[in-house]
Amino acid sequence: MNEKRQLRLGVAGLGRAFTVMLPTLARDRRIKLVAAADPRPEARERFAAEFEARSYEDVEALCADPDVEVVYVATPHQLHAAHVKSAAAHGKHILVEKPIAISLAESTEMIEAARAAGVHLIVGHSHSFNAPILHCRKLIDSGAFGRVRMITALNYTDFLYRPRRPEELDTAKGGGALFSQAPHQVDVVRLLGGGRAKAVRAQTGAWDPTRPTEGAFSALLTFEDGVFASLTYDGYGHFDSDEFQGWVGEMGQQKKAQGPRVLQRYDDPDVEAAAKNARNYGGSGYQPASSAPPQHHQHFGLVLVSCERGELRPTPDGVMVYQQGIGRLDELPPPPVPRVEVIDELYEAVVNKRAPLHDGRWAMATLEVCLAMLRSARNGTDIALSHQTGLPRDRA
Amino acid sequence: MNEKRQLRLGVAGLGRAFTVMLPTLARDRRIKLVAAADPRPEARERFAAEFEARSYEDVEALCADPDVEVVYVATPHQLHAAHVKSAAAHGKHILVEKPIAISLAESTEMIEAARAAGVHLIVGHSHSFNAPILHCRKLIDSGAFGRVRMITALNYTDFLYRPRRPEELDTAKGGGALFSQAPHQVDVVRLLGGGRAKAVRAQTGAWDPTRPTEGAFSALLTFEDGVFASLTYDGYGHFDSDEFQGWVGEMGQQKKAQGPRVLQRYDDPDVEAAAKNARNYGGSGYQPASSAPPQHHQHFGLVLVSCERGELRPTPDGVMVYQQGIGRLDELPPPPVPRVEVIDELYEAVVNKRAPLHDGRWAMATLEVCLAMLRSARNGTDIALSHQTGLPRDRA
Repeated sequence: MNEKRQLRLGVAGLGRAFTVMLPTLARDRRIKLVAAADPRPEARERFAAEFEARSYEDVEALCADPDVEVVYVATPHQLHAAHVKSAAAHGKHILVEKPIAISLAESTEMIEAARAAGVHLIVGHSHSFNAPILHCRKLIDSGAFGRVRMITALNYTDFLYRPRRPEELDTAKGGGALFSQAPHQVDVVRLLGGGRAKAVRAQTGAWDPTRPTEGAFSALLTFEDGVFASLTYDGYGHFDSDEFQGWVGEMGQQKKAQGPRVLQRYDDPDVEAAAKNARNYGGSGYQPASSAPPQHHQHFGLVLVSCERGELRPTPDGVMVYQQGIGRLDELPPPPVPRVEVIDELYEAVVNKRAPLHDGRWAMATLEVCLAMLRSARNGTDIALSHQTGLPRDRA
Repeated sequence: MNEKRQLRLGVAGLGRAFTVMLPTLARDRRIKLVAAADPRPEARERFAAEFEARSYEDVEALCADPDVEVVYVATPHQLHAAHVKSAAAHGKHILVEKPIAISLAESTEMIEAARAAGVHLIVGHSHSFNAPILHCRKLIDSGAFGRVRMITALNYTDFLYRPRRPEELDTAKGGGALFSQAPHQVDVVRLLGGGRAKAVRAQTGAWDPTRPTEGAFSALLTFEDGVFASLTYDGYGHFDSDEFQGWVGEMGQQKKAQGPRVLQRYDDPDVEAAAKNARNYGGSGYQPASSAPPQHHQHFGLVLVSCERGELRPTPDGVMVYQQGIGRLDELPPPPVPRVEVIDELYEAVVNKRAPLHDGRWAMATLEVCLAMLRSARNGTDIALSHQTGLPRDRA
């Protein structure tokens, strides 16, 4: 691997996703930030100054920039399809945030556009990139624990009460836990279960009429080979399941044993959107992430993988391996850069031509499960799945 | 309440259920053990000597004993129906172990027999009797936390590798996790969810061909008012979810942080049945329970109740109440006698004419869910429920 080669990356959207991804992009030496597009002038100005880079109001202009080699699409969910197609049309490789899109039709168009242009389309970050999840997959592949039989995943957060733009509270526009949070959990569970889900039965909860989108769900997912998984998510902010992760937060940060959450209520959607923007890159309340290396791996809540000859449990510090009641930690040192695994996969694909796991088809399969969960809850029945795909080694 | 009045109790079956229930029956002064029936002479002899009581080979003879006021039916699952009907025919009140029976038809006959005889039929112990579960229900009923929205329950044990009689490994005869373990979890979830489930979708796991019955399941249960619950159980012995309960075991005992489990394999079913009998009351390996009062409440794994204005989590020491990220323990001192709540309910019903919660209809509704879980896993669809009943205050 030639690590001296830098990928020249242009960022489409300097909002929340970029703000969270910035420590990765800024610190991984395989990436050079060369340009960005965002409607907010304060974000563009900060980006141009901080990275001595070009900035654009418009994503189309970013995609046309001849110096940009990879476009990182971190715009709102409902714009992913247009922006990915624009990047592909300009021959750029693409890293797009999850969810890949808000419909399967869009996903198909995006995959087709990337294929036609001969560029890579990688979808992430999702928490299935996290080293403990990937290591858990390797332990499964080793055969030492026999076949996977059942997976349990649960996560309790304050998702619904973080500041939002209005469309983020509108499911039809790609808002709510099914589009923003389920992709993490479904990606993790599909990766550990082998990828090819067969059917899903789910219930969803939209319990706060002032924030009228889904904040919770519970799903029973069945895979083609009979493996089944339970996925439970609650974003209403009362309980924090980091209690089961040694009080390590989603971003790998050590938290206090417990702490109050301000579940702030906003009467005015404009005030709320402004509050969100203020916390994002370039905003008046923006706090650059600490430059200290991560203390732990990132995670997305409790995950338990029941195998024939042992139980595997990815944690923020590695993988707990339990056999006959005795657990030991298969320790993984914290990554030098948070989410380094995303750059690993992107760099390997673009530079070393290695097929990525989290490609368009993989992400479309995850989106299919999330959409099916919404439909199952409405219809009260199982929803059969038809766009599933396995791990790269199992793909046709 | 006149606590001087003692209930004269006869025990049908001195096996595992009785062995576990004995500390309750022996130490609660509201109970006087006056007789027992069991096929094993060593158990009968020990019982007669220890309690200066009568003993019978045959349950029918026990039921006919004029001095017996309440029959505790703790025989194998598939014999509950016959023994309950026999006790009712002799005008005895009945405490029968869960599951009430192995079919709905049997349950109906048992309920009808008790009704016709004018005797109480109470089904338990199940872990929904535990004080933290009942207190959690009271907190819900207080209205302080708004409506229940979602419930998550999970439990990982070594259930499948405890010594068994052959029929306990045969689902058709009432064996396996769906008959022995699911009734606990379903009872807990139904009690907290209000009782009236509407439909269930489940998958079950029977992963060890040498012990060919279900050892695991995951279910999505939906209640009439839209509340939904996820129930997950794994009895294959690798992971121990008491890790989430401060290492307090199911019986309320403090355990070491982790300990090896001997998941013993038996080649000969007769040897295995003998090993089970040896551990039971009167057997060569029988160890009377410590007479020290319990350190903690009994429990059946992790339970999380998402309410509109808080999360409630019964624990071995009370109920954790979480609101906006802050948790506090609503502490409940350990009971003076383990499972005292079962005697509370039995005594109140028989002596003070107070309608019990865990009556035949309640238990039949729980059995219906367990049977529907088996059917849902076979059919791959939701199973509608039609024998559900609410809490006593909500009953017709």
